[in-house]
Parts: sequence; C-alpha cells; structure tokens
Amino acid sequence: MIQEMPMPVPPWTVSQWFNTAAPLTLESLRGRIVVVHAFQMLCPGCVAHGLPQAQAVQRRFAGDDLVVVGLHTVFEHHEAMTPVALAAFLHEYRIGFPVGVDAPSADGRDMPTTMRAWGMRGTPTLIVIDRAGRLRSHSFGQVEDLLLGALIGRLLAEPAGETTAGPSG
Amino acid sequence: MIQEMPMPVPPWTVSQWFNTAAPLTLESLRGRIVVVHAFQMLCPGCVAHGLPQAQAVQRRFAGDDLVVVGLHTVFEHHEAMTPVALAAFLHEYRIGFPVGVDAPSADGRDMPTTMRAWGMRGTPTLIVIDRAGRLRSHSFGQVEDLLLGALIGRLLAEPAGETTAGPSG
Amino acid sequence: MIQEMPMPVPPWTVSQWFNTAAPLTLESLRGRIVVVHAFQMLCPGCVAHGLPQAQAVQRRFAGDDLVVVGLHTVFEHHEAMTPVALAAFLHEYRIGFPVGVDAPSADGRDMPTTMRAWGMRGTPTLIVIDRAGRLRSHSFGQVEDLLLGALIGRLLAEPAGETTAGPSG
Amino acid sequence: MIQEMPMPVPPWTVSQWFNTAAPLTLESLRGRIVVVHAFQMLCPGCVAHGLPQAQAVQRRFAGDDLVVVGLHTVFEHHEAMTPVALAAFLHEYRIGFPVGVDAPSADGRDMPTTMRAWGMRGTPTLIVIDRAGRLRSHSFGQVEDLLLGALIGRLLAEPAGETTAGPSG
Repeated sequence: MIQEMPMPVPPWTVSQWFNTAAPLTLESLRGRIVVVHAFQMLCPGCVAHGLPQAQAVQRRFAGDDLVVVGLHTVFEHHEAMTPVALAAFLHEYRIGFPVGVDAPSADGRDMPTTMRAWGMRGTPTLIVIDRAGRLRSHSFGQVEDLLLGALIGRLLAEPAGETTAGPSG
Repeated sequence: MIQEMPMPVPPWTVSQWFNTAAPLTLESLRGRIVVVHAFQMLCPGCVAHGLPQAQAVQRRFAGDDLVVVGLHTVFEHHEAMTPVALAAFLHEYRIGFPVGVDAPSADGRDMPTTMRAWGMRGTPTLIVIDRAGRLRSHSFGQVEDLLLGALIGRLLAEPAGETTAGPSG
Repeated sequence: MIQEMPMPVPPWTVSQWFNTAAPLTLESLRGRIVVVHAFQMLCPGCVAHGLPQAQAVQRRFAGDDLVVVGLHTVFEHHEAMTPVALAAFLHEYRIGFPVGVDAPSADGRDMPTTMRAWGMRGTPTLIVIDRAGRLRSHSFGQVEDLLLGALIGRLLAEPAGETTAGPSG
Repeated sequence: MIQEMPMPVPPWTVSQWFNTAAPLTLESLRGRIVVVHAFQMLCPGCVAHGLPQAQAVQRRFAGDDLVVVGLHTVFEHHEAMTPVALAAFLHEYRIGFPVGVDAPSADGRDMPTTMRAWGMRGTPTLIVIDRAGRLRSHSFGQVEDLLLGALIGRLLAEPAGETTAGPSG
C-alpha cells in the first residue's frame, strides 16, 4: 500500500489557508518531513479513519522534524463543501494542524488543481514527503498505523544533510 | 438514560424533506413506533454513533410497526449546514430513511422550531414515540444499543389498539 | 439470527458452579427471564463479543425479572479448560454472574451433557428462556445488541402470570 | 512510553518452545530486530491488544530483518496457565510466531526467570531489541501502533554492520 517513489513533489496550489498565520509552501518546509492528508469534509472514510490518523501523527510527531498538513481536495458536491463549511467542520472536529483549500480547477473541471497535478485518485489520500522534498509515499484509502509509523520512523532516521545534498533536493 | 414520559408529542415543524415522496406527520404515523434521530451533519457524536445506530434500527425494525425519521436540528454553523450541504451529506453517508429539516426559528434565534418546542439540549438527541403518539424516551447523547433495543422490544409488544384507545392517544 | 421456538427447555446438567452460593436450577428461576451464555474460555469469539455482551446484559437488566447464567460448554481442549483454569479466567475477566460447568459426557464423548441435550452447534451460543421456562431464542455466533435488547424488552413486557399459566409452562 | 535504553539484553531462559523447530537464542538472532511480546494467556490486555499487535508486526515486518517472539511469562494462576493450556490457546488464537515458556523460578517465586532478569513489571510487556542485541524499548501496557511502527522503522534503517561493530554489541 505504501510505496516509495523518490521523486520531487511539485508545489501545491492553495486558495485559502486555515489554522496557520501565513501560507505554507513545500519550499519553506524543506528539511522537515511533510505528511499531507488530502480529504473532503463529507468523505466518510476521511472522517472515520484518515483525519483521526492525521491528528495522531500531529500529536505524536509534529515538531522541528515533521509537519502535518491537511489539503481539502473537493472534487464533488462543491456547493456543499465550501470554505465556510470547512471552517465549521475544522472547529467541530478540533482539527489543529494547518489545512489548505486545494485551488479550484482553472478550466472548470471538478477536480481541483493540486489533486490533478499530484495524480490523486480520490479521498482520503496520504502523501508523505521527505526532508529533501521528495515523494516517499502516495496512498489512496486507509493506511495501517503500523506501516505509516514505520515510514515516519525511517524518514526521521535520515539525516537532513544527507537528503538535502542529494540531486533531487 | 432512557426515561419514560408518556406525554403526547407536539407536531414537528419541518421546512424541507429528504428521502420521502411526501411530507410526514406524526398524525399520519399514528399506530407505528416513531424513532426520531435529531442530529447535525457536522456533529461528531452524531456521525460516529447516533446516525449509524439510527441506520441499524432502520435495517432491523423499520416496517409496518416502526419508522425511523431523521431531524436536522441546526442550532450552530447555520451557514455551513444548509439543505444543499445536507443533501450531499445524506448521499455520502447513504442515509436512506426520511430526514426533515427542522424549520428555522421564526424570531431569529439560533435554535430551530421543533428543537425548542421539544426541549432538546443538543445533538444527538434520540426521541422515541409510541403507537399512540406519546413520548416514551428522550435521550441526549449516546444511547446503548441494548437499552434502545429493549425499549423498542417493549413498545413493539404493546398492541396498537390498546394504546390508541388510551386517554392520551 | 434470533428465532422464536416456544418450547420448554430441559434442565441443565452442571458439575460445578462458580459465583453462586447454591446450585441454580431452571425450575427455581421460573418467573424470571434467563439469559444463558454458553462459552469456552479459550474461544476467541466468546471472549471478544459474547462474554462482554453477557456482562452488559447483567449490568443493565439483571434483577428480579432477569438473570444471566454462564455455561462452560467445553467440547475441545478438555485438558486446558479445566475448572481450575476457568476459575482463573473468571477472576481475570471479572465475570460476576453465576457460571456452571456443563457436565462431561457420561459416555466419553467430547461434547458435554447440556450442550448435546440442548442441540448446540458450538460456542458462543446464546439461549434465552422466558418467565415460563420456554425457549425463546437459540443463537450460535455473534448476536447484535439491538436484536438481543429487543427480545429482552419484549419478554420483560410479558406478565409473569400470563406465561406461567400457559400449557407449556 | 517507549524509551531507548541501548544496553545489551541478557539471554532469556525458556523451558519449552512452541511454533519453532529448534530453540531460539538471542545470540542466533543477532543481526535481526527482535520484537518480544511477553504475555499471559489469561491476561485480558494481552488478548485484546498486545497479541493482535504482535500478530500485525509479524504479518507486516517479519523476515530477514525482524523476528517476533512471544514469551509466556506466567506470574499468577500457575495451575491454570500450563504449557498444555498454552498450546490450546495458541491454536485457538492462531498465533503463528515462536512462543517460549519463561522458565519457572528456581527458588519457588511466582515470577519466572526471564521476567525477573529483565525487570518486567507485569503483562503485557513489549521489548524491542536491535540488530546488535541491545535493548531499545521496554514498555509495560498498551503501546500505540504509530509509535511502535516508528521505532521499527528507525531500527530497520540502521545498517546491520554499523550496529554489530559497536562497542555495546
């Protein structure tokens, strides 16, 4: 389920941020592991499994070495999952990590910009990026805590210097 | 948690119905047990416990003798939990029983009409009405399946004739 | 899963009792609903589902009208699931209701006496007996709390006098 | 909950093995990560959490780099948790990894030999040993999958050569 594809990740395109004072960029997070949870607020699997897992990762590992970022990738029911509705959702579910709204498609498609650029197939999707900004895991659906933990443990063990010095850094 | 208060239940005031061809009234359901699940689509306890329980009651008991009715009692985040958003929610969570939108307060209060008339304190609230239209249980919060099952079993055992002939029917 | 077979239940044959000062008989429990949980201490489904459910029934309903009785129906691994081992098990799992050891077969068969007499197919098996001593449910495997609760609610609603006066009492 | 104490681990003392053709020694497992789950077959927390977690670790990580070993550390109810009973338990719960019976105390104490030598406080206890035979985690009670996964991921990332060449190896 979790595969390694050590490719550089293109930037995300976010139209609005929640739970952060300033917009986040992958560039500015270089040197830290970035765990991206792509979700829709009305996706049952995201609410039951993905978001609680992202909250647990935040609680256990977030800090100088790792950051959790939510990405609201709305590809259906656009009229229901608006930024105003998302704000209420984040409040009710006590989501504390930064969440960006994936920018709507410029050409009127259902799928938003980052979701298409990153090749996501649906929600929930978990994306893990290493200290050098390379994609290390891209998983659609439920991911076991043991496997996600093992990936995080491995990436945390990689020295920042080693990876940022790499050709893909 | 479940108490018996055999009082007649005043009618609900619903501004819009989902999952039913025609509006429902308590009057028209007389003779059947009515299990009302009052919820908000962004209430975590409703999504995790109350609605799955209501779906299980629907699956196991709905028929000539019992009907499950959802009541969307929005008392906060009104701009997020609109009827359009509710329609998407019911679709994603595969809620098949009839759901009514509790009519907004006529005098601009946050709490909608039926929620206030029935004295609810929040969501989820489970209301059980017997064949004679009398309130038999009013519970705020999570209700154990065993206890709810026992109440349903007891009410199903009451003959329709006996109760409708009662003074409070 | 739960079926009604209003037949009189033959007595159980118990070689040893736990959690009760004196041996129990179905005869002496007449007038009360008897919920029998037949289990083996090394049966995973009994430990994960059946026994916790029996404990919840005990907690919610046991009293003048209902009694929970465990029946240790060992039909395999006899050398492991001895009365001494059962005593340790009941202590560790904090089982508080009376538990009887189903008497070993007189003719050397694996299946103990009551298990065979009552036609059980395995463990866990849930047997529910009404106030008149008649079998009202016999279920092999996991039983939903909602359904068990409904059966209990229905049986509790049956007046003691009515049933004991019946021809099958 | 999980702490690192990079000390060499003394050998275990096992009186009987299950699920392995030949006795295992820590010495012979040098170069592999060893995840030891110390349990009692009648310990509810072991049955509900610890053993399923050990089985998941086995399923996801066991191989050339990691081995899961169960240790039956009986310190109470000795007459119930005999090797014969353990054999039935392992069969019923489908435990497939090697399990050793911690050797009874030579001086008649309740606590068995390895349990005392390793300073365990009860069951379940999770012990994680790195490729060089050093103790890297010793946890009494329930351990989150995310945290255990992270530790495993980190230890898997340590090259075998590096650790076995270390002074504490």
